[in-house]
Amino acid sequence: MRFDTIIRNGTVATASDTFVCDIGIRDGRIAALSTELEDADEVIDATGLFVLPGGIDSHVHLDQPSGDGIVMADDFDSGTRSAAIGGNSTVLAFCMQEKGQTLREALKVYHEKAQGKCHVDVAFHLVITDPTPEVLGQELPALVEDGYTSLKVFMTYEGLRLRDDQILDTLDAARRTGALVMVHCENEDAIRYLIGRHEEEGKFAPKYHATTRPIPAEREATHRALSLAEIVDVPIVIVHVSNREAMEEIRRARQRGQKIAGETCPQYLMLTADDLDRDALEGAKYVCSPPPRDKASQDACWEGLEQNVFDLFSSDHCPFRYEDVHGKLNEKGKRHFRWIPNGIPGVATRLPILFSEGVMKGRITLNQFVAQTATNHAKLYGLYPRKGTICVGADADLALWDPNRQVTITNDILAHGSDYTPYQGVEVRGWPVRLFVRGNSVMESGAMVEEAPSGHYLSRQRSSLVSKPA
Amino acid sequence: MRFDTIIRNGTVATASDTFVCDIGIRDGRIAALSTELEDADEVIDATGLFVLPGGIDSHVHLDQPSGDGIVMADDFDSGTRSAAIGGNSTVLAFCMQEKGQTLREALKVYHEKAQGKCHVDVAFHLVITDPTPEVLGQELPALVEDGYTSLKVFMTYEGLRLRDDQILDTLDAARRTGALVMVHCENEDAIRYLIGRHEEEGKFAPKYHATTRPIPAEREATHRALSLAEIVDVPIVIVHVSNREAMEEIRRARQRGQKIAGETCPQYLMLTADDLDRDALEGAKYVCSPPPRDKASQDACWEGLEQNVFDLFSSDHCPFRYEDVHGKLNEKGKRHFRWIPNGIPGVATRLPILFSEGVMKGRITLNQFVAQTATNHAKLYGLYPRKGTICVGADADLALWDPNRQVTITNDILAHGSDYTPYQGVEVRGWPVRLFVRGNSVMESGAMVEEAPSGHYLSRQRSSLVSKPA
Amino acid sequence: MRFDTIIRNGTVATASDTFVCDIGIRDGRIAALSTELEDADEVIDATGLFVLPGGIDSHVHLDQPSGDGIVMADDFDSGTRSAAIGGNSTVLAFCMQEKGQTLREALKVYHEKAQGKCHVDVAFHLVITDPTPEVLGQELPALVEDGYTSLKVFMTYEGLRLRDDQILDTLDAARRTGALVMVHCENEDAIRYLIGRHEEEGKFAPKYHATTRPIPAEREATHRALSLAEIVDVPIVIVHVSNREAMEEIRRARQRGQKIAGETCPQYLMLTADDLDRDALEGAKYVCSPPPRDKASQDACWEGLEQNVFDLFSSDHCPFRYEDVHGKLNEKGKRHFRWIPNGIPGVATRLPILFSEGVMKGRITLNQFVAQTATNHAKLYGLYPRKGTICVGADADLALWDPNRQVTITNDILAHGSDYTPYQGVEVRGWPVRLFVRGNSVMESGAMVEEAPSGHYLSRQRSSLVSKPA
Amino acid sequence: MRFDTIIRNGTVATASDTFVCDIGIRDGRIAALSTELEDADEVIDATGLFVLPGGIDSHVHLDQPSGDGIVMADDFDSGTRSAAIGGNSTVLAFCMQEKGQTLREALKVYHEKAQGKCHVDVAFHLVITDPTPEVLGQELPALVEDGYTSLKVFMTYEGLRLRDDQILDTLDAARRTGALVMVHCENEDAIRYLIGRHEEEGKFAPKYHATTRPIPAEREATHRALSLAEIVDVPIVIVHVSNREAMEEIRRARQRGQKIAGETCPQYLMLTADDLDRDALEGAKYVCSPPPRDKASQDACWEGLEQNVFDLFSSDHCPFRYEDVHGKLNEKGKRHFRWIPNGIPGVATRLPILFSEGVMKGRITLNQFVAQTATNHAKLYGLYPRKGTICVGADADLALWDPNRQVTITNDILAHGSDYTPYQGVEVRGWPVRLFVRGNSVMESGAMVEEAPSGHYLSRQRSSLVSKPA
Repeated sequence: MRFDTIIRNGTVATASDTFVCDIGIRDGRIAALSTELEDADEVIDATGLFVLPGGIDSHVHLDQPSGDGIVMADDFDSGTRSAAIGGNSTVLAFCMQEKGQTLREALKVYHEKAQGKCHVDVAFHLVITDPTPEVLGQELPALVEDGYTSLKVFMTYEGLRLRDDQILDTLDAARRTGALVMVHCENEDAIRYLIGRHEEEGKFAPKYHATTRPIPAEREATHRALSLAEIVDVPIVIVHVSNREAMEEIRRARQRGQKIAGETCPQYLMLTADDLDRDALEGAKYVCSPPPRDKASQDACWEGLEQNVFDLFSSDHCPFRYEDVHGKLNEKGKRHFRWIPNGIPGVATRLPILFSEGVMKGRITLNQFVAQTATNHAKLYGLYPRKGTICVGADADLALWDPNRQVTITNDILAHGSDYTPYQGVEVRGWPVRLFVRGNSVMESGAMVEEAPSGHYLSRQRSSLVSKPA
Repeated sequence: MRFDTIIRNGTVATASDTFVCDIGIRDGRIAALSTELEDADEVIDATGLFVLPGGIDSHVHLDQPSGDGIVMADDFDSGTRSAAIGGNSTVLAFCMQEKGQTLREALKVYHEKAQGKCHVDVAFHLVITDPTPEVLGQELPALVEDGYTSLKVFMTYEGLRLRDDQILDTLDAARRTGALVMVHCENEDAIRYLIGRHEEEGKFAPKYHATTRPIPAEREATHRALSLAEIVDVPIVIVHVSNREAMEEIRRARQRGQKIAGETCPQYLMLTADDLDRDALEGAKYVCSPPPRDKASQDACWEGLEQNVFDLFSSDHCPFRYEDVHGKLNEKGKRHFRWIPNGIPGVATRLPILFSEGVMKGRITLNQFVAQTATNHAKLYGLYPRKGTICVGADADLALWDPNRQVTITNDILAHGSDYTPYQGVEVRGWPVRLFVRGNSVMESGAMVEEAPSGHYLSRQRSSLVSKPA
Repeated sequence: MRFDTIIRNGTVATASDTFVCDIGIRDGRIAALSTELEDADEVIDATGLFVLPGGIDSHVHLDQPSGDGIVMADDFDSGTRSAAIGGNSTVLAFCMQEKGQTLREALKVYHEKAQGKCHVDVAFHLVITDPTPEVLGQELPALVEDGYTSLKVFMTYEGLRLRDDQILDTLDAARRTGALVMVHCENEDAIRYLIGRHEEEGKFAPKYHATTRPIPAEREATHRALSLAEIVDVPIVIVHVSNREAMEEIRRARQRGQKIAGETCPQYLMLTADDLDRDALEGAKYVCSPPPRDKASQDACWEGLEQNVFDLFSSDHCPFRYEDVHGKLNEKGKRHFRWIPNGIPGVATRLPILFSEGVMKGRITLNQFVAQTATNHAKLYGLYPRKGTICVGADADLALWDPNRQVTITNDILAHGSDYTPYQGVEVRGWPVRLFVRGNSVMESGAMVEEAPSGHYLSRQRSSLVSKPA
Repeated sequence: MRFDTIIRNGTVATASDTFVCDIGIRDGRIAALSTELEDADEVIDATGLFVLPGGIDSHVHLDQPSGDGIVMADDFDSGTRSAAIGGNSTVLAFCMQEKGQTLREALKVYHEKAQGKCHVDVAFHLVITDPTPEVLGQELPALVEDGYTSLKVFMTYEGLRLRDDQILDTLDAARRTGALVMVHCENEDAIRYLIGRHEEEGKFAPKYHATTRPIPAEREATHRALSLAEIVDVPIVIVHVSNREAMEEIRRARQRGQKIAGETCPQYLMLTADDLDRDALEGAKYVCSPPPRDKASQDACWEGLEQNVFDLFSSDHCPFRYEDVHGKLNEKGKRHFRWIPNGIPGVATRLPILFSEGVMKGRITLNQFVAQTATNHAKLYGLYPRKGTICVGADADLALWDPNRQVTITNDILAHGSDYTPYQGVEVRGWPVRLFVRGNSVMESGAMVEEAPSGHYLSRQRSSLVSKPA
């Protein structure tokens, strides 16, 4: 067989196996894995490199509207470019339903935003903010059939949060259609109550973002989401878990027999609430929800990765410009933490951080890294086996990693729209030096090398968590 | 010293001790405990009897309005008479705020309902259904100072349930005033969701009352109430716990450091969901919320009493007439379980059931019985040390129990307004044969012996759970 | 009635109640509690003082032999005098069986040691070190009938430790006779293994006493003891619990349905392993087993007291003279931690420490204090209702406490034989200012006031934990 | 490239992936996986079949001596033949040290037993029964270097059990050498105690094998083994877990941070203690240790597989002949359960049972099946990546499974030496229809097709659980 490309002699890793071989690519797919392959247009020597499935980041916010004239710092161009720089070949972004909008209308908007701009493959989760009977009963079944197989609901943020009855209706629609629901778990009412108490006490600095969103508010909402899913009898994903107490709720739910996926993010391994208390308004750079906690919570999140409580390691990339927030556009943010946009950039740094801190420091295996950054995302979100692994027949989405490459993270190498990274100065060992998306060489040595953005939109199957629709 | 009454040679039990002595009563109080007392107007021989603090039932519904023309089966006359028959010297009833009503207005109504009718001492918990800023910020502080030191909120029942933000406001008001909040924990939205699914499937029989209020709906609300209290930093009471999962939430909360009281009731020891499936509409006699569960849940509730997870054993007396429900007044109840009034009678049977099944069968000690039926109620609801124990200075509220008296429970001996008891035919060993309230002989051998209803209204201190108002 | 003594107007506390009254004492017993008593040989004004049951310290080592020429620092004279100074009216000491000795022989020795020397009442636990069929099958049944109703076994200390088969035989003998078994839970083999590793690494300082007896060695033995008791189906007491992990084993066992008593001691509330690392050989003053742990373990032990995981708060008084240990008698102790005798003095400081740190700081109630220092000891070790509470008919063992008396603990006020106290310099609020044993005034203002030692030996009933012998 | 064999168009599964491809085998290894391969001596069509890694059974007893003249029913010939029939390409058998024997001497015996007889590849675990300093300090380090990298110790069986000090020494030797220790966890002393009580009560039937080895005896030993490993700081394997309580100990140990592997077996999914109570002495056919428990324990073991608490699913094949046991050789077994040999056959039925009950019934995925029956065994016991997966470079150990083949298990198809199977009559769906070992066709349609036994002895690397020797 003749191949378009052969990647030779790399150390290939899947979610379970590690072995050395040649990979033959044809028509954008992996056509062969072999002790030796010969015949190709291009042969790339990967000796000494890891050949991993391209990362799948299933929790990425791009080009979403925000109130107050603040613009999200990444559109689909810069966001997917940054993803590619960081070793990702697929991102799952959010399509945010506006109140009163149909899901089809929202999708039209987001498809247009993405059209022609994507440097890696892209799919959309549907954020449900207005779960009318029409949306849930009529639109959703058709959309799931069309390949939009995941939803997200919020239990926090005024304007986005759903009430319990709405969450139940949405979970029930998921049960009937076979969609998978992701839940952002924080108790909005508790947060608002605490903001009120903080305001009474004159506490407005960025660090109070953390104290108004304490662990019990996350644990409560996590348990509630899990309980509602138990009552409806449908699987769910608990996203961005930040601490032991919320994590233990996932363990408890599984021991009750529920089908649950869990996710954590780099910020919960690398940052703490102390970062929100940095000098001047520097703390604003670390404002995200749930907030980073403390050292014990970091240890808990590592435990969750080591012991596979978490299936997913995602970025929750949600980029803003510090200049905007703290410059002319957001005077309010200087006066009250609640006006600081919630979110930090991270699509480019997710993989190097986990590789360096997790794999190179012996906390997780290379195979767990692959599972938690690619394979499980593909399985849970209906992209498997086309995406997320290295096997015959899969898309040739491949990241070549140099395990010995040492990099000091600085904002200028990340190619995202934010004017800062919360990981400035962090030193990592191991870096993605080359990326193929469906066999096309897209990134090399930190620079984009494609001729034009060639990312595809991906229609998806149902999640592996979903046995079958009711 | 000369006494009004001496109770001679009884076996006296408190929450910790058991000993034989004479009790000297003067001016309605216990004036002396002694190896021998001589000088009294009346000497009662209690040889071979237990002399226990009169029962305090802190969870009793009397003369509350109900929709649909159904009248609660007990007013303060019949309800407190039944309490006395069952060995109780004090009941805490609910004063239910109507929407739009001030608490003072509600209290006026309930004081009038009670006026002159009470056979035992009575106090009121305030049920908050409309927690406006005026109610919480202005009325409540004054009412707490006036001795109304406990509130109740509902997480279920349309029209009664509070939203999380309202619960938080109420808990915060409790924190500021030192009131103690009781919470009925069931997730109303989940219940309504399940009712919808049952209706789709044509399931309307009484037994579906239980399946639409499953354990996870109670566990969820219990954890939520506990978490909101944790966030506000205030103690609460979880009332009428029916199963292990909800009970474990109490244990977890205590291990987190929270101050929590827990309550269970006879129906969770003696009944199961199978009782709701009895022939014809007999099942309707067992409809209460949370519903009785199964044998394993009964075992859990016993464990909770044995191990003092539960501080309180109350009746949740909430009596209706089966004839009303199933006769002309409630045709709807025959067609759909949701129209069956929620509640069962139990103020007269609470003590004999726990005495017989608990003490006589060796599951709990006599001292635990006293604690769980009297002392802890007094302490937690601000009546201690005047009520709830036998010590010098306390009110002479005394029940004489014959531990060898065997009784088959039948409705005709209970003196309540319901036309049935869910415990019909249950055989118990041990029965309260005489009752003194503030030294007055009120009940003897199952008959009232007072000249006229002489129960007092009790103004209360703050709960022992409350360190001090914030 | 005429009384020998009236204690007037004190604030009396039992394990459940607190009230003001006069106490009338006649013939060494409490004859009356009353609002006012008049007629007595002596009237003592206790206005403003607490009148509590005299402390019962159920874990006290006195006059036991020790190897290496080191003499235990207290005999029954000094030990019980120190107990009285610290507010105790009863101590339970150990009668240690020597290998090859019958229990009767051992008892003869200890009765002789105690004879005529005791300033408070005394009983003996039998330490079983040689559980032959004769000892367990023939001696023990008779001894239990004679009022020796508790045993102790060791899982550590070469020469004392029993193997699992011996523990099982002893538990089985307890099951048959209705004796209650106390277990010292540390895994001797694990400790010896760790000592070996420490020796390899040249680690001999006192602080290594703690690292060779780590928490897992205590947790393991605790779980094993509990499991063996579960298999035999017999209650046991886990003594001197030092940390959360061992404590959780008690909770787990109770949740399995086992009848278990738990004990902790002042050293686990007040000391940490850091104390063993004090300058020079000062650390040797804090060597006891299990060793004090860390702040988190202290918090756990407090939680255990607050939540009644622990029934018993005892001293584990086991006094040595620092001068002996570090002077001529014990050169070896300077060279290797394993030659430092295990044990610290504490019979005089137990009550003031718990009163001050527990009651006065609001961690436990006064009633819990009474339960954990007196009532529960009496119930669990068969002295109730004669000892351990204040009720009509009980022995007039009464300690008068001044809650406002501030004392700085120094060795010279403790009257024990040790030449140091590990609590030197600790400031406490609340102190026992007077002690009555069976109505006799024994101690006043820190000085003994009896004419001669008048403590009685106490024959005991079976434990309240023991339903009845098999 | 030319291949020796091509397996065409099968559905290949690894521990993480499932895909369709051709597999090219050369020189006994997997040389290529490809969309299409052409050039081979032999092409086998696997359309519609699963191509899985050959099973690795890491818990197999073969040709071990037994007391009382009873011969184990399988030697290496019949045992490995039965393994092949059941889809296994590798078994790990035990080399049992006799008291007084060196490990080298024991290995010499077992290599001789195996020599020339093995139909699949074989390696040995070293059973340590006499852990002298010479054995642990001198022999073991060299043996680990020679590829004997796993040990087993027993906490039960007189003559085999080690005391805690011996276990600690053995774990310490493992720590120093990097060997992995397997532990059979049951408390021998507790079992003997219970046997004594049973004998007193005249209970001798086979069913009392189960009641004398109750769950607490397994839980206790499991916790003890885990604690000793924690103290030594070394990973261990808990073998043949039979119930929830022991399983939860593994979860707890992991949450403490320990590196632990867990194993369960078919008997704990399929049998219960009731099977030991079958008519006549039929119950003796189900005697193994730990004994099968009850339905709830089965459910727990399934949960452990579903949630990956268990890494390993092994047979604990330990075959005896019922005829021997109940015939002339073992009259004692008829009189007392303790003389019935402990063990049941299962090497042939392990895979079909898990495939049918687990994969086909949707409890576990096909990928979990591969992990739990092959990949994890290879990783944990140092055979990876040569064994246990399907990837380029691995041995061509391949089992072809027909997922639709329905088989009723009967003893005559299993090829083992036992005269019965405990699974007689069980119906399964899915069966291994062909087996390749290192590329050689060994079994086809239930019959052996090799020319001669060609199994290799496998020298092993250290376990993946072992970071590196201390």
